[in-house]
Amino acid sequence: MNIPKTDKPRVVIIGGGFGGIQLARGLAKTPVQVVLFDRNNYHTFQPLLYQVSTAGLEPDSIAFPLRKVFKKQPNMFFRWGNVERVVPEKNLIETSIGDLEYDYLVFASGSTTNFFGMKSVADNAMPMKSVSEALNLRSTVLQAFEQATLTDDAKERQELMTFVVVGGGPTGVETAGALSELKKHVLQHDFPELDLRLMRIYLLEATPRLLNGMSDVAGEKAVAFLQEMGVNVLLGAAVKDFDGATIRLQDGSAIASKTLIWAAGVVGEMPEGIDKAAIVRGNRINVDAYNRVQGHKNIFAIGDVASMPGTDERYPNGHPMVAPVAMQQGQLLARNLPKILAGQDLEPFRYFDKGSMATVGRNKAVVDIHKVRFQGWLAWVAWLGLHLLMLVGFRNKLVVMINWVWNYFSYDRGTRLIVRPYIKEERNKDVKAA
Amino acid sequence: MNIPKTDKPRVVIIGGGFGGIQLARGLAKTPVQVVLFDRNNYHTFQPLLYQVSTAGLEPDSIAFPLRKVFKKQPNMFFRWGNVERVVPEKNLIETSIGDLEYDYLVFASGSTTNFFGMKSVADNAMPMKSVSEALNLRSTVLQAFEQATLTDDAKERQELMTFVVVGGGPTGVETAGALSELKKHVLQHDFPELDLRLMRIYLLEATPRLLNGMSDVAGEKAVAFLQEMGVNVLLGAAVKDFDGATIRLQDGSAIASKTLIWAAGVVGEMPEGIDKAAIVRGNRINVDAYNRVQGHKNIFAIGDVASMPGTDERYPNGHPMVAPVAMQQGQLLARNLPKILAGQDLEPFRYFDKGSMATVGRNKAVVDIHKVRFQGWLAWVAWLGLHLLMLVGFRNKLVVMINWVWNYFSYDRGTRLIVRPYIKEERNKDVKAA
Repeated sequence: MNIPKTDKPRVVIIGGGFGGIQLARGLAKTPVQVVLFDRNNYHTFQPLLYQVSTAGLEPDSIAFPLRKVFKKQPNMFFRWGNVERVVPEKNLIETSIGDLEYDYLVFASGSTTNFFGMKSVADNAMPMKSVSEALNLRSTVLQAFEQATLTDDAKERQELMTFVVVGGGPTGVETAGALSELKKHVLQHDFPELDLRLMRIYLLEATPRLLNGMSDVAGEKAVAFLQEMGVNVLLGAAVKDFDGATIRLQDGSAIASKTLIWAAGVVGEMPEGIDKAAIVRGNRINVDAYNRVQGHKNIFAIGDVASMPGTDERYPNGHPMVAPVAMQQGQLLARNLPKILAGQDLEPFRYFDKGSMATVGRNKAVVDIHKVRFQGWLAWVAWLGLHLLMLVGFRNKLVVMINWVWNYFSYDRGTRLIVRPYIKEERNKDVKAA
Repeated sequence: MNIPKTDKPRVVIIGGGFGGIQLARGLAKTPVQVVLFDRNNYHTFQPLLYQVSTAGLEPDSIAFPLRKVFKKQPNMFFRWGNVERVVPEKNLIETSIGDLEYDYLVFASGSTTNFFGMKSVADNAMPMKSVSEALNLRSTVLQAFEQATLTDDAKERQELMTFVVVGGGPTGVETAGALSELKKHVLQHDFPELDLRLMRIYLLEATPRLLNGMSDVAGEKAVAFLQEMGVNVLLGAAVKDFDGATIRLQDGSAIASKTLIWAAGVVGEMPEGIDKAAIVRGNRINVDAYNRVQGHKNIFAIGDVASMPGTDERYPNGHPMVAPVAMQQGQLLARNLPKILAGQDLEPFRYFDKGSMATVGRNKAVVDIHKVRFQGWLAWVAWLGLHLLMLVGFRNKLVVMINWVWNYFSYDRGTRLIVRPYIKEERNKDVKAA
């Protein structure tokens, strides 16, 4: 794989997400060689993926070339490849582009969609954790409308024009809201032949409330906003089965729909080779307060794939799987690694929770900053501003801002192209290739 | 296909390119029903495709949703589908979404890449006539560099870092120039591990000059600009064969390269069913001065797919296959169709040539406006301005302008993501699906 052997220890990082980037950047001045693996050549800003799915943003605006992140960091090597297996006895990883030895190994491999073991759902629903999946979803929604113009069978047309989002977290809430705006401002004009009153959007959540993890008032306000926008919010509604045309719920009821958008949860994702005993709830790797993997001195895990149960009274089952935790763990490990090399005492992890927010639509968002809670226009502006700030790269900030300003004043969505038609049979291949 | 039958004549247009759009728009107030077919749900602004291939622009900025073009035109139906065969005896077309009868039929189906019957080239070279092809090319270039980092075989690395563009028309010249800028401003920084002096860019043209169809001074200046930028321009160099690693020329010489970009020519593209006798040079349909297909009263062809030899002393073999001809023929047919319905005399086509231009790189372009010819910075500004004006949609103009301003001042290219890795074996499927 053509990575030079130096006398400096080699730190291999698996994954260029929020945690991996912070760690790699933080090691710029540490006397180590850093090798970062990712199966994409870009970093994905996942909080805005739902806007790619709903034709609001181009994928290029919410992704950032990884090589560009590190272009002024001489101790850094990026490799575009998939890490398939870890062999801790040999301090070795096996990847799609060859084997590599490491001195220190960091799992920053994130999470993947959790279908809770339901095969029919995994086969037929649309996940949205990656850029390709978001583009597939965009194609699916637009293709469903094109198909609806072709049929004179009222039942089929209704199935095509019904969209069911599962999962009442931020992604589900944001996607359902964005679909409702797409209906009102875009599809209505694009498809004058269709009676848009037929278009139905459902949001299903298995627990009794939306936005678990935020305050009650945020959850209730999200329901109110969504209902105002015409979304059918069903709480306590758990999906049992989906055959591609009918969604069956555990209470025996059913919804006829061709499109099930799955945002119901995630599980840790990692290469093979980690001792099963170290894997805890949610397929996450058990780490100590220094992100060290149980039983290993030179293997670490940060972000979604890591779980640190019992170290913080606020999070007895481990921290939430969100970007700020990953970023803070990456930053901490970048400070701790030089201490390990120097034989000094390490600093334990303590999550600084800045609060959470979710947006539903134009002028409609909810924000919790500890005891300070607000909703509506101000929350929406705060949401926009924070997400612009967090985007990597000035060009991306600029292009996203212009798109948002444009969408706001024109009530339009610019990017509704079916660039590559989505063919269900090819999904798994796409997902793998991506 | 669910298109209502009315008492108005039905005009079916095959293709939403420059000609098809002008015609369909021009018929807004004519008492006809218009049905436009395209295999994409968007119009592609082909003159800027090369910037998508070379990571300068997002595909969404140079394409425009077709339904949006016609959203205020009640006599208009868009259908996303592929027209497979025409049955003139029955006034019927067979498409991927069913059959449809027409009263008037217009071929506006454009052109496709001409490999001049060389199977090995068709199998292994990269064409760039569509958005998917441009994205495939972008992936190929970036993947070649990722692969070059992995090998310690000097010969393989050189093959991976050699890019050969074939065809000295505007597309070939523009692509070779853009690759040279990508090398200088982007790849150099992204791949510090590689010796970028190894990267070689060739532009091959079979005739003795570049930019045939423009003035001699434009052609000579283009060569000078490209050489200044480090492109190896080979004139009188005709490709014979390409096996995926070696390009063989007709003079017996060879270039070792994994990437052959084919911009050497186009041929008319159309569904089956047109009488072979009506097909002339370049696989174009022979039409009279009113764009009527020889032997048919109610079938027309406009743009690249149409040829009007012998009607204009300036173009004895038919008009050039360029956007302005297609647009003017679409506009004319929109004026002539009402005359046909009213039994009035028709207006013959007379091409108004406004001139031509091509860009090579930053501050480097060539412009011919009849006897007025200029090159360099002013020509480049004129090129930018004209292409911004021609882009469909204000949002697209805005986003493209911002990208250009950004690229100009930052010397950067923002959109270098490998969104879906390009796998050669799947190319033909991609191209078909797209």
